[in-house]
Amino acid sequence: MIPYQIIEKKSKGQQLSDSEIREFILGYTDGSLPDYQMSALLMAIFIQGMNTEETLALTKVMLESGERMDFSSAPDFVADKHSTGGVGDKVSILLAPILAVLNIHIPMISGRGLGHSGGTLDKLESIPGFNVNLELDKWKELVIQEHVGLIGQTGNICPADKKIYALRDVTATVRSIPLISASIMSKKIAEGIQGLVLDVKTGNGAFMQTPEASRSLANSLVSIGQGYGIKTTALITDMNQPLGSAIGNWFEIEESVRGLQGDGPKDLMDVTYALGAEILRMSNPDLSQAAAIDLQTRTVTDGSAFEKLKKITELQGGDPRVLDNLSNYPKAKYSGVITASKSGYLSQVDTMALGFAGIQLGAGRRKMSDSIDFSSGLYIHARLGDKLEKGDPILSIYSNDEKALEEVLNKGKEYFSIDRSLPEIPPLILERIE
Amino acid sequence: MIPYQIIEKKSKGQQLSDSEIREFILGYTDGSLPDYQMSALLMAIFIQGMNTEETLALTKVMLESGERMDFSSAPDFVADKHSTGGVGDKVSILLAPILAVLNIHIPMISGRGLGHSGGTLDKLESIPGFNVNLELDKWKELVIQEHVGLIGQTGNICPADKKIYALRDVTATVRSIPLISASIMSKKIAEGIQGLVLDVKTGNGAFMQTPEASRSLANSLVSIGQGYGIKTTALITDMNQPLGSAIGNWFEIEESVRGLQGDGPKDLMDVTYALGAEILRMSNPDLSQAAAIDLQTRTVTDGSAFEKLKKITELQGGDPRVLDNLSNYPKAKYSGVITASKSGYLSQVDTMALGFAGIQLGAGRRKMSDSIDFSSGLYIHARLGDKLEKGDPILSIYSNDEKALEEVLNKGKEYFSIDRSLPEIPPLILERIE
Repeated sequence: MIPYQIIEKKSKGQQLSDSEIREFILGYTDGSLPDYQMSALLMAIFIQGMNTEETLALTKVMLESGERMDFSSAPDFVADKHSTGGVGDKVSILLAPILAVLNIHIPMISGRGLGHSGGTLDKLESIPGFNVNLELDKWKELVIQEHVGLIGQTGNICPADKKIYALRDVTATVRSIPLISASIMSKKIAEGIQGLVLDVKTGNGAFMQTPEASRSLANSLVSIGQGYGIKTTALITDMNQPLGSAIGNWFEIEESVRGLQGDGPKDLMDVTYALGAEILRMSNPDLSQAAAIDLQTRTVTDGSAFEKLKKITELQGGDPRVLDNLSNYPKAKYSGVITASKSGYLSQVDTMALGFAGIQLGAGRRKMSDSIDFSSGLYIHARLGDKLEKGDPILSIYSNDEKALEEVLNKGKEYFSIDRSLPEIPPLILERIE
Repeated sequence: MIPYQIIEKKSKGQQLSDSEIREFILGYTDGSLPDYQMSALLMAIFIQGMNTEETLALTKVMLESGERMDFSSAPDFVADKHSTGGVGDKVSILLAPILAVLNIHIPMISGRGLGHSGGTLDKLESIPGFNVNLELDKWKELVIQEHVGLIGQTGNICPADKKIYALRDVTATVRSIPLISASIMSKKIAEGIQGLVLDVKTGNGAFMQTPEASRSLANSLVSIGQGYGIKTTALITDMNQPLGSAIGNWFEIEESVRGLQGDGPKDLMDVTYALGAEILRMSNPDLSQAAAIDLQTRTVTDGSAFEKLKKITELQGGDPRVLDNLSNYPKAKYSGVITASKSGYLSQVDTMALGFAGIQLGAGRRKMSDSIDFSSGLYIHARLGDKLEKGDPILSIYSNDEKALEEVLNKGKEYFSIDRSLPEIPPLILERIE
């Protein structure tokens, strides 16, 4: 294999063979191919694309570059949920305990915040003591015995993806459907799951901003999963406004706890239950959609899902008492409110800007070495289509960084549009792909 | 400037601003931007292209990354000729002395062999003692006093191009019209010339294989030259067979000497005079084409051009006696002949394969550290359309490497097609672009 010729082939838009993809990726992973050749190939893929066959081959080599989990000894159905990322998306924190109570094994390997989007690991770490870096054996034991364990990616899982992702991040080759697909699916397949539901976000707070792009990505992800014999479906869900009200790590834990206590925002609960129903119906095809929703709501009303979250928190080293006493959590030093500048209907929210505002306030990292201020974040008080009077609060802002708070207070007014007429409101769940 | 955003912009096919191009290229040249970001941008440019404005900006920053020669003190017109590279193309070795005799200053900075194509510097070094690495001051003195000096690129001229070229070479981003144009033109403009004629090769032995691609390149090169106030024209000339008969360093010097002695192959002399006429008419717009050709042939018939070649050889440390006694030059140990396998017209020559065969025999480098065997090479005995009888010699092969010779003898039969009917013969000079 001559790397030069593989790069040249893709730059002309031609299909790469399985062995060309394999040798290039493994050569890069083991250090025998330099960064600059990988980045040239990534850019050629980014512009020219890859077909389903190539995307599958790329997924396969990434998967095989590392360790693959084995849950064949688990007594119940093994499944996971993955979101392509948005603002205020805390579904995993609700869904993992709900499904675990319903005897689904959830070997959930999550990520950190990325771009404007928060990360499940960062949110979990806002619970004092919560350890997302468990030994793999300990994690597997939790997944089998407690039906759920929540960790981050380890060095053993898809090392090729890890190395390539870092390079994509600095060469403007992140937003490529085949590259995203192979990256997501190799890690999910490595979890050893039997079922997977994908929450593909669409809208101005999503990585894929149009329904068409989201649909392409969803189709690509679903076809890879099914190609691996994993029951896979996707929901395309709206990200033209944050999901729920809370944005920021502890704020989102708090909102998740309220959700598990029966007091969650409707949009958040609807998306959670819809995704959960997908997995429950994969596990039991005879189950109706209504019954799948009902099973989940009962874990909330009877308190079992919240108990599960506290138990898993405790087993992963965290302090479950903070979940029972939400108001005791340390507060940010500074806060402010943005109010409606005129009366009318909330017609547009700059969701991505809200995500970046959260980072600016301290809820995310500007560079890898930054630490996170778990007490900083945002609450959005209105949803698209809500009728506002001039002066009504729209956004509450919390931070320990006074200057950042001032800046967000100033810029933040521009994140919202208010119109005289009722805007068209995007549906929460646009489409189901199977 | 954020490099990421510049890469992203070009990957979407958008136009980069002058300052974006400048900061990226200078950042890469001074080492503050890594190879992998440059190679991502190069691939994006390779696939998405650059318009005239961007290509000019790229040329400008490459040019300004280094030193620029100044021949404003030269009494006569200062000009150069550049070829995009082919097989058997020894025009520079004839044209430099011819034009010098006709009082054109030729500050010729040439290259080494590249891919299948030979390089003027390698050819000159087959003359014992010939030094192509003169001090710049010494070279300038020669250009002013003798009207010609022949050297290679120095570290001071277009260092940005030097660094980027090395990266293009390993990332499959060589064949890009804007990248080629900026690379060629920045170096030529740095020579401080007033006139430039470009020999843009086309055909199966050229880097650009179709007339359309060659025409695009020629237009791009000419517009950059003119944008810098340099009188610039281009001839698109045929490279569907070698130029002249000789391929290989000393073999090409020998053929050039015969050309300057009035005994050169017609195609070689025609291209040489046509290119020379372009420069003579830039220098003196009143000169007719016929007169421009006539002036040149007279430098051959009166022996003055050959004397000039010997003089410049001597002044650059070479031994001019070898040029007077061609037959004394060391011969290759092994030789062989490929003959016509049937009677008919020579209808096709695999010109690029002949170029690579020359390298295999020792006339070029397979890797940078290889040394060149000046006595190895090829002679082609027939031209497209020539009538051959079975057994007529087509190609003579010379090498000091017996195994390589055998291999070329075996493969070489496939380089030639012989047909019953007279093939269409491509014109030697397809087009003039100004």
